[in-house]
Amino acid sequence: MQIFKPVKTNDSLFIKHESVLKDATEAVHKRVHYTPFPEMPSPKEYGETAEADQKSKFEAQLNGKFDRLKQSSDTWLTSDEESPYTSKSLGLSYPAFSNVESYIKAADKASQDWKRTDAKTRAGILIESLYRLKTNFFELAFATMHTTGQAFLMSFQASGPHAADRALEAIAIGYQELTRFPDHISWEKSAGKFNLKLEKYGINVGRGLGLAIGCSTFPTWNTLPGLYASLIAGNAVIVKPHPKAIYPIAIVIGMIQDVLSENGFDPNLVMLAVDKADKQITKELAEHPSVRIIDFTGSNTFGSYVESLPNKIVFTEKAGINSVIIDSVDDLEAVAKNIAFSISLYSGQMCTAPQNIYVPESGIKTKDGVKSLAEVENAIVEATKGLVEHPKAGFAVAGAIQSKDTVERIKKAGALGGKVLLESKPIANPEFADARTGSPIIIEVSKDKRDLIKGEMFGPIVFIVPTKDTAESIELAASGAREHGAISCGAYTKDPAIMEQIAIQMAEAGTPVSFNLTGMVYVNQNSGFSDFHVTGGNPAGNASFTNPEFVVKRFIRVQSRVEGDALSN
Amino acid sequence: MQIFKPVKTNDSLFIKHESVLKDATEAVHKRVHYTPFPEMPSPKEYGETAEADQKSKFEAQLNGKFDRLKQSSDTWLTSDEESPYTSKSLGLSYPAFSNVESYIKAADKASQDWKRTDAKTRAGILIESLYRLKTNFFELAFATMHTTGQAFLMSFQASGPHAADRALEAIAIGYQELTRFPDHISWEKSAGKFNLKLEKYGINVGRGLGLAIGCSTFPTWNTLPGLYASLIAGNAVIVKPHPKAIYPIAIVIGMIQDVLSENGFDPNLVMLAVDKADKQITKELAEHPSVRIIDFTGSNTFGSYVESLPNKIVFTEKAGINSVIIDSVDDLEAVAKNIAFSISLYSGQMCTAPQNIYVPESGIKTKDGVKSLAEVENAIVEATKGLVEHPKAGFAVAGAIQSKDTVERIKKAGALGGKVLLESKPIANPEFADARTGSPIIIEVSKDKRDLIKGEMFGPIVFIVPTKDTAESIELAASGAREHGAISCGAYTKDPAIMEQIAIQMAEAGTPVSFNLTGMVYVNQNSGFSDFHVTGGNPAGNASFTNPEFVVKRFIRVQSRVEGDALSN
Repeated sequence: MQIFKPVKTNDSLFIKHESVLKDATEAVHKRVHYTPFPEMPSPKEYGETAEADQKSKFEAQLNGKFDRLKQSSDTWLTSDEESPYTSKSLGLSYPAFSNVESYIKAADKASQDWKRTDAKTRAGILIESLYRLKTNFFELAFATMHTTGQAFLMSFQASGPHAADRALEAIAIGYQELTRFPDHISWEKSAGKFNLKLEKYGINVGRGLGLAIGCSTFPTWNTLPGLYASLIAGNAVIVKPHPKAIYPIAIVIGMIQDVLSENGFDPNLVMLAVDKADKQITKELAEHPSVRIIDFTGSNTFGSYVESLPNKIVFTEKAGINSVIIDSVDDLEAVAKNIAFSISLYSGQMCTAPQNIYVPESGIKTKDGVKSLAEVENAIVEATKGLVEHPKAGFAVAGAIQSKDTVERIKKAGALGGKVLLESKPIANPEFADARTGSPIIIEVSKDKRDLIKGEMFGPIVFIVPTKDTAESIELAASGAREHGAISCGAYTKDPAIMEQIAIQMAEAGTPVSFNLTGMVYVNQNSGFSDFHVTGGNPAGNASFTNPEFVVKRFIRVQSRVEGDALSN
Repeated sequence: MQIFKPVKTNDSLFIKHESVLKDATEAVHKRVHYTPFPEMPSPKEYGETAEADQKSKFEAQLNGKFDRLKQSSDTWLTSDEESPYTSKSLGLSYPAFSNVESYIKAADKASQDWKRTDAKTRAGILIESLYRLKTNFFELAFATMHTTGQAFLMSFQASGPHAADRALEAIAIGYQELTRFPDHISWEKSAGKFNLKLEKYGINVGRGLGLAIGCSTFPTWNTLPGLYASLIAGNAVIVKPHPKAIYPIAIVIGMIQDVLSENGFDPNLVMLAVDKADKQITKELAEHPSVRIIDFTGSNTFGSYVESLPNKIVFTEKAGINSVIIDSVDDLEAVAKNIAFSISLYSGQMCTAPQNIYVPESGIKTKDGVKSLAEVENAIVEATKGLVEHPKAGFAVAGAIQSKDTVERIKKAGALGGKVLLESKPIANPEFADARTGSPIIIEVSKDKRDLIKGEMFGPIVFIVPTKDTAESIELAASGAREHGAISCGAYTKDPAIMEQIAIQMAEAGTPVSFNLTGMVYVNQNSGFSDFHVTGGNPAGNASFTNPEFVVKRFIRVQSRVEGDALSN
């Protein structure tokens, strides 16, 4: 007999998606490019009318009840969401419980079947939910635009295909880890004249209820990995989105709940738990003893609070102070254009956006001879102006500013004491005249103002930091990462020894480095299946989406062993 | 070019041990029985004169300086070790530093080369150290006997082959995880008319200095897994043994230091940091910011303190209150004998020893009809008496009592309020007339005294707990595990439905169950490569030696990516 019989088994969705799971698993291990979700919003891939249809769906949804969730609730809550493009409320309301305990109870109840279901059934359902989501990528894009301020293309890519890739990674690694050891072995060991024999049975036990705390800038990309990782491991999850960015993740949760229901599972396995900015329920959820796993994306302050909670398994992505180290380049203009794009993309509101650019005060070598610090600064300033002032590219790259706080921060940045090389200006958006925008402000920070570079200045605020030499640049970037956290680092050098030095010193500070980017890859971007994102090696966090730890900590393996074969059924 | 070049590479030991590593890895995955270290102290396996030679070595070592360590030091410290068999001091002294900071500095310096060494070199050296240790298994056995009080056979097996197996598991899983993803990939992604290309390089970065805190009862079996797991992951380790059980782990550390030295590595990579019971340095070490990984075996109080330290990766094995659930059996006498052995083995001083035995007050079904509670109690009492009073088996199974505190605890147990079914008595030891011994005290605990069963009574103290029925037995065992921790559970049932119920409820409480043991396998025993030990699913800890989490948390993976192939060397 098998003493750990799954309570519900349904192979049909697993069989349907088996080849995708296999390809995804292989891609994670080989770390090659892979996706079953095309990243361009092309009519060929997604259907001729998909964009128009889903734009209508989005518009019809505004100022109404989001009634696509199958979860239990006892009230409706009108959200604080407003569009950074129009500054108008989205007028959305969501089903909610009037007390936290009700979410816990409902999720716990829903987990009873799920936790005893086999990995195949779980994987099949979860992958199916991603394909279901794929049919809504355009609505998801509009929902993301009008909550986060991302430009359309990023909204589509980050919230749709790229987020789904990250979820698929988590499912693939999760499935592999859940099935890594046999469920049953007949163990034998020689004891001299005879053999000792035991039947051993293994079961994976989820750690318990998960809580996924979302952020305002990447409501699905940052939430899906932890959400799916907890689910594949056998846990229920309560999703507490940022009060200003609910709509995108509500679409995702609706899709998962649909697939769960269709397959005979309680849709409360994944619950949306919304709140208002002035009455947040996050701490009450996080501190609840039933909540065992917490995934958090957001500020250092709240992240450190979450990390300090006893008896929780915590994955965080907090602030990073990301660096660019310029040592030597071939083509300064190409480098400057790449950096300009990185600092302008989504107006510096990506967790991977560079903030501190280290340049030796004696200048840098290029293929056209040594360029002075001033020339390097000028190249970056001119490239940035060229991009953000471009009538078609500017708004399409920079998008809008999610939060009014960020606008205030940009305004004050000029008075911090640095030398302003480029002022922040509004970026004209032909479609949205009232869009909340701001181009990067670029500030040179002299040696006596170095305290400035130690804090994260979220948004399009960039410091150029003259250093004694590249060795000092590396030291500042690495110590900054170690002490204050970093998620990315860009570096430019033509010297193999310096490249090795940068790579090693930053690796020891837990920070991946992108070297010599001049083309269409940017330091901000992390590629699903291929890049490790947030390594756990510095205070920026440990949400390392493609590292097995991200999944294995969410369940335990327990074995039972039986002497004899007396029991059969 | 490879931007993460290892600083030292030596394949020779890896090649020497490659087949062992392969076999061990396969054994972990298949969870079959495997060992390259024969578990019986037979002359055939270990050499005709091995026992006598190493006994002489042990005797010559007593009352002298342990001068086989290659580590730096500035003083000698005479240890508190004394033999539970003779009550005499071992008179040993060890090299030491007079301040904690010196250990940290020396270990940190030694880690510089090791952390940049490839996984093959590390694995080769570490496996070689186990084979070196194998040549000292008998001295290790005598050292273990005379610090822990274990009987000879257990001392040999637990400190020698079984501990080495556990270390080999950690090396095998560690090597596999370190080499799981490619070190270099040429990444390509189609961007329409052309391909984006990046060279991506990965490196594993150890989390930092490890601290392994040993216990007084299993000074090598409980220390080696964490020690070797930290080492294979690229970290230096300071070992802080229990003040009363240093000698065994000192032998191990000496062997590792020898192999390190011979291969050009700084022996301070593994340091023995001894202290006296009245002046312990454990907290100072544990709280040191350079210490990033802590492996702890010992009391709940200290374990919870270690777990509460911020910014540490902690693995603990704390107290467990282990249960036996008796529902129905074939042969009561065979069951009673198996239980008697489990509670007498090393006088109940194993972390896996049963404490609370749950029996329905209406009795149990057997192949000879229903046996009453009193008959079940009597069978266990008689079997225990038969074993401990046996002139050859008694002392050989029970060994001696490590700590005077345990003797006091046994003395007081009779007055706790239960009904004493069997008194504890001294166990005659023909070789050591002054051995500190005590046979199990067996106490029936009535319903109004149930608070008794919630605390760990370390040592040979056993409670028989009458319950309403098996459902209540399961509930008490599972809730006890959840609230107070448990590492093992024994259960006897002939009913498949009840077996499933016990297995599931205990699995959800993070506790493995051994069913229907009547032969020569005991609930206390965990088999290397095959059994998961301490699951992390309850407060007893998370030192799950054969779960990948035990290794993957000790390092991070960092990638760097390079555009173009401009750099060569």
